[in-house]
Amino acid sequence: MSGEAAKRWNKERVEIGILGLGVVGSGTVQLLEQNRQEIERKIGMPIHIKRIAVRNLHKPRAVTVDRSLLTTNAYEILDDPDIDIVCELIGGVDPAKDFVLRALQNRKQVVTANKEMIAKEGQVLMEEASRQGLDFQFEGSVAGGIPIIQPMKNALAGNRVTEVMGIINGTTNYILTKMSQEHIDFQEVLREAQAHGYAEVDPTSDIEGFDAQYKIAILASIAFTSRVSIQDIHVEGITKIEAADIESARDLGYVIKLVGIARRVEGDRMQVRVHPTLLPQTHPLASTNGVYNAVLVRGETVGDVMFYGRGAGSGPTGSAVVGDIMDTCRNLRCGTTGRVSCTCFEHKTMQPIDEVETRHYLRMTVQDKPKVLASIATVLGNNDISIESVVQKATHSGLAEIVWVTHEATGRQVKHALEEIKRLTVVLNVASWLRVEA
Amino acid sequence: MSGEAAKRWNKERVEIGILGLGVVGSGTVQLLEQNRQEIERKIGMPIHIKRIAVRNLHKPRAVTVDRSLLTTNAYEILDDPDIDIVCELIGGVDPAKDFVLRALQNRKQVVTANKEMIAKEGQVLMEEASRQGLDFQFEGSVAGGIPIIQPMKNALAGNRVTEVMGIINGTTNYILTKMSQEHIDFQEVLREAQAHGYAEVDPTSDIEGFDAQYKIAILASIAFTSRVSIQDIHVEGITKIEAADIESARDLGYVIKLVGIARRVEGDRMQVRVHPTLLPQTHPLASTNGVYNAVLVRGETVGDVMFYGRGAGSGPTGSAVVGDIMDTCRNLRCGTTGRVSCTCFEHKTMQPIDEVETRHYLRMTVQDKPKVLASIATVLGNNDISIESVVQKATHSGLAEIVWVTHEATGRQVKHALEEIKRLTVVLNVASWLRVEA
Repeated sequence: MSGEAAKRWNKERVEIGILGLGVVGSGTVQLLEQNRQEIERKIGMPIHIKRIAVRNLHKPRAVTVDRSLLTTNAYEILDDPDIDIVCELIGGVDPAKDFVLRALQNRKQVVTANKEMIAKEGQVLMEEASRQGLDFQFEGSVAGGIPIIQPMKNALAGNRVTEVMGIINGTTNYILTKMSQEHIDFQEVLREAQAHGYAEVDPTSDIEGFDAQYKIAILASIAFTSRVSIQDIHVEGITKIEAADIESARDLGYVIKLVGIARRVEGDRMQVRVHPTLLPQTHPLASTNGVYNAVLVRGETVGDVMFYGRGAGSGPTGSAVVGDIMDTCRNLRCGTTGRVSCTCFEHKTMQPIDEVETRHYLRMTVQDKPKVLASIATVLGNNDISIESVVQKATHSGLAEIVWVTHEATGRQVKHALEEIKRLTVVLNVASWLRVEA
Repeated sequence: MSGEAAKRWNKERVEIGILGLGVVGSGTVQLLEQNRQEIERKIGMPIHIKRIAVRNLHKPRAVTVDRSLLTTNAYEILDDPDIDIVCELIGGVDPAKDFVLRALQNRKQVVTANKEMIAKEGQVLMEEASRQGLDFQFEGSVAGGIPIIQPMKNALAGNRVTEVMGIINGTTNYILTKMSQEHIDFQEVLREAQAHGYAEVDPTSDIEGFDAQYKIAILASIAFTSRVSIQDIHVEGITKIEAADIESARDLGYVIKLVGIARRVEGDRMQVRVHPTLLPQTHPLASTNGVYNAVLVRGETVGDVMFYGRGAGSGPTGSAVVGDIMDTCRNLRCGTTGRVSCTCFEHKTMQPIDEVETRHYLRMTVQDKPKVLASIATVLGNNDISIESVVQKATHSGLAEIVWVTHEATGRQVKHALEEIKRLTVVLNVASWLRVEA
């Protein structure tokens, strides 16, 4: 805490500069204007949006703002000595990171909803904020409007968290829900989601799991008070999920969800991974459908706590950004910015995905002949993988489909077994390999 | 903010005094000791439990504490100038309120999990805390370990909340869940719950809805920034719920839950009520079973947000108390206690339960004769109550049971209709009248 940060507030109002007036920026401005009176009463001081930086002055906006507020020059905000809080709502690393660093160097409090920037460059930004005794808040970066970062840093902070599990990408959850409800394949649902605006024109970051990767990295770092390098996180997207998998899973009592999982493992390590996962239909996360998100936090003392709500969009993420702005305003008023700073005291190592033990789901097409099932079961057994359940169904033209759910085994064991299984002449293909969580 | 509160922290450690070493007190002490290192690192200062006041020095405790810490004299804590934070964990209004007031007058920060005291005497205590610039925190008073008060005061604070709905009493939810799963009647489940420690020897406060009443009063006051007088809250318990109601509800696609509801209504009013409620099986709260609690917050901007977890018990409530202690410690370190104070700026008036419009569920026993259903439907129609669904089942000895679900109608309309219906000679009794939420 620098001496300067301890100064009491003596300005007439808090001046806010906003970078970006897209989906989240519009939601933030709209909420600040609409509930101004209640917001100011709660924080005990007036707020004022002084300037908004945009790329295109003439683009139509979802919110009405005085044209004189707009600028295309972000430095008119970053370098304005009168601005107290900079809200970075442009997304991506470049130029957002440089803008935020500049804002911090100019002693501005920062609020952001930028998961990619936090996940990739959070350390340098948080260290700069700590050095300067500044607030650096990012509730909107994970799970949209759902309060999850503040509760983990505050109300749940006494707990030793053993696990965080979340459905934290609305686009993929919408697609998987649709596939499940309407029995249609991935590509068709994706096209429809794009038409409705639930998926981007370039959907890569969502459907390949990168968006969820950034978010679980942020949650893991708070849960385990450790830095998390995103390149150490195992990521699989949902592009290979077929309608047949969703149906087989349902028959076995499961739903398929794209889940981010962060788990404490022995030896001061953690596992952090994102992949399509079979969850029992009775799992707390299993009924999170459509664009909704949910995050389950397992604390040793509190037990299971779950947070559920809209994980994206103008209103929900705007709500999170405004919550952070209000918290920062309270800190400004009290002269205690930097009050809750980064808690990454450790550098836990990552358990490689090959060593992670889970149950597994395997779906394969085989020749419908005697002893085929036995020969595959033998390979699994030779690799020390025991079987929880198996269903064989004849399909057509002398082929059959076999779906296995194994007991706990490492990724390495299953990888080895599958190499052997693929070499069996009676096995036409291994269509799917997915992990199963309890 | 008094000048004195702005002083920077200069003590070696934070001294904590605890009143009460029952279920919550034990959980709090255990968590503080068990995770001391992580907790101190997160808050940036050492903590020390200096003294614990108990009624009986010799009672066996769930947690091991040095006997020298114990005292039977609460004033050794309340009046000790060295103690910074007083945790009131004895429950009830008397003597807890006097103890807390004394602690505040002696300029101590207060953490409590006492819903009854907050609901009944919160105003005077919060005013005293505000006057002195002190922290007064009570996350543990509602829904045990689930973070709900802090998120509503912070992350969701920008929202205009339109509604809060919660399953906020674990005992009644356990009983209703058991009744539903095992088709047994209330009295039998209650006895079993008492044997397992899920219900108290005197279960009145839980089963009559008073416990939920205190909690929904607290949530409503935060949601609507208004004082809520608990005597204005309509309360019905679950003692009259029969297995037959649970089955009829299920046949119609509903579950029965004891729900606390706080809703913003036009004309600067609110409705706050606690009663057994039929919820559609697809309702976000409907799958909250056993001792779990869940709170659904509807914000105009964020949409639906739900919080789920264990609503009571040593660990969960201890977790909430420790979260509050940590927040208070951070405020002490920064010299900004009283940073977030009471937000009851208004005094909204309560909509009387007679005026509250909901759908209704009515179950009655009638003579199994022609025109009986028509005659009852006529009475409902005369009272302007239209019918959404009706099921008549013959029972035995010439009797039939009719279950109605109405469209929206006020409590007054239904009350008048039922008076008339009871006068019909073909109607033997009206066994149940419950409200239905969408």
